[in-house]
Amino acid sequence: MIEIPVSSSERNEFIDITGKISEAVSKTKIESGFCIIYVPHTTAAVTINEGSDPDVQTDLLFWLNEHIKPSSSFRHAEGNSDSHVKSSLVGHSVSVLIEKSALVLGTWQKIFFCEFDGPRKRKVFLKIFRA
Amino acid sequence: MIEIPVSSSERNEFIDITGKISEAVSKTKIESGFCIIYVPHTTAAVTINEGSDPDVQTDLLFWLNEHIKPSSSFRHAEGNSDSHVKSSLVGHSVSVLIEKSALVLGTWQKIFFCEFDGPRKRKVFLKIFRA
Amino acid sequence: MIEIPVSSSERNEFIDITGKISEAVSKTKIESGFCIIYVPHTTAAVTINEGSDPDVQTDLLFWLNEHIKPSSSFRHAEGNSDSHVKSSLVGHSVSVLIEKSALVLGTWQKIFFCEFDGPRKRKVFLKIFRA
Repeated sequence: MIEIPVSSSERNEFIDITGKISEAVSKTKIESGFCIIYVPHTTAAVTINEGSDPDVQTDLLFWLNEHIKPSSSFRHAEGNSDSHVKSSLVGHSVSVLIEKSALVLGTWQKIFFCEFDGPRKRKVFLKIFRA
Repeated sequence: MIEIPVSSSERNEFIDITGKISEAVSKTKIESGFCIIYVPHTTAAVTINEGSDPDVQTDLLFWLNEHIKPSSSFRHAEGNSDSHVKSSLVGHSVSVLIEKSALVLGTWQKIFFCEFDGPRKRKVFLKIFRA
Repeated sequence: MIEIPVSSSERNEFIDITGKISEAVSKTKIESGFCIIYVPHTTAAVTINEGSDPDVQTDLLFWLNEHIKPSSSFRHAEGNSDSHVKSSLVGHSVSVLIEKSALVLGTWQKIFFCEFDGPRKRKVFLKIFRA
C-alpha cells in the first residue's frame, strides 16, 4: 500500500492526483490489473471527471456548495456536517483498471482528490492488484 | 478487458446493460471473483437499481433533472456542467461479485449505463477478476 | 462470500456494520488484500463516514431527507422512489483495503449500512480478496 500526501489550500477544492497515481502504477510494472484509490478522511472524497477545462471543477464545486450548505438544523458541534454530506455523496474510493502497466482512463478523465473541509494536510491510500 | 459499446438516444437515459455484462462473465467461466464495470466518460455514469418497473428509472432521472439543472452560473463553455455533476454524483464504476460463474445481484437489481449528455455512441469497460 | 444479516427499525437509518466486517476479515487471516461490501437491495446503500459522533449520521440523514423527498411527480406505484434515488446517490458497495489482516480505515471512519425504506430484514454481502 502506498500513501500519497495531499495538501489543500481552500475549504473546498479539487486537486488533480492523476500524475501521482499514474507514476506509482507504472513503477510497479504490473502489466494488467486494477488499483483502489482510497481516502481515509470523512470530510474529503475522490472522484473522476473532466480535467482539461478547470471550469468543470469550478462548476462541480459550485453545485455542491449551492446544494449542500452549512445549516443551523445540523446538530454536529464541529459545524462541518456539510463536508460530511459531500464526502458520502461523492464517495471515498474509486477503482481504476490497469492495462499495459498504465491506468485505463477516458480521454478527458482525471482523478481528483476532493477537499471539503480544508485547508488541511491529507493523504490518499493506493493499492495495486494484479489480474 | 472487454469493451462494450452502448448507444444512447436521449440526453438523459438509463440503459440496462445487465445482459451484456452477465453474458461476458459466464463466457470467462471464472467460478468465483468480481468484476469492475467502468465508464470512461465524464458526462455519463453507471449505477445499480431496480430493473423490473421502468418507472423507477423515470423517477431517478426526474430527481436528477430537477436538482441538477443547466445554470447560467456555470462557467464551462460547453454548457453541459449539469451532466458532469450528475456523473460524479452517480459514479463512474461499480464492482459486482461473481459466484458460480454468475453475477451476484439482488432480486430486483439491474446494472444501468447512465447517459447524461446524449445521444451519443458510448462504451463501457469490463474486467473480470478471479478470487 | 459471507452473508451478513442486518435488521433496521426505522424508515431511514444508518447502522454501523464495521465490527461485523472487521471480525470476518480478521477470521480469514488474509494478510494483505481488499474486501467488497455489497448491498443487494435497491432501497438501501452502504457508505463510510464519521462514527464517533452520532450527530453526523443524524445530519447526513437530515440532508438526504430534506433533498430527496417523496413526490407526487414520481410514477413508481410503490411510493418509495425517494428511497431508490437515495440508494443510487449513496451507492451499493464500498471497497476497503486490508493490511496486516485488518481493515484500513481512517481514524474516524466507520462503515454504515444505510436503510432508506425500512424497517426491514436486510443483508450485506462481503467478499475478501488476497493481494
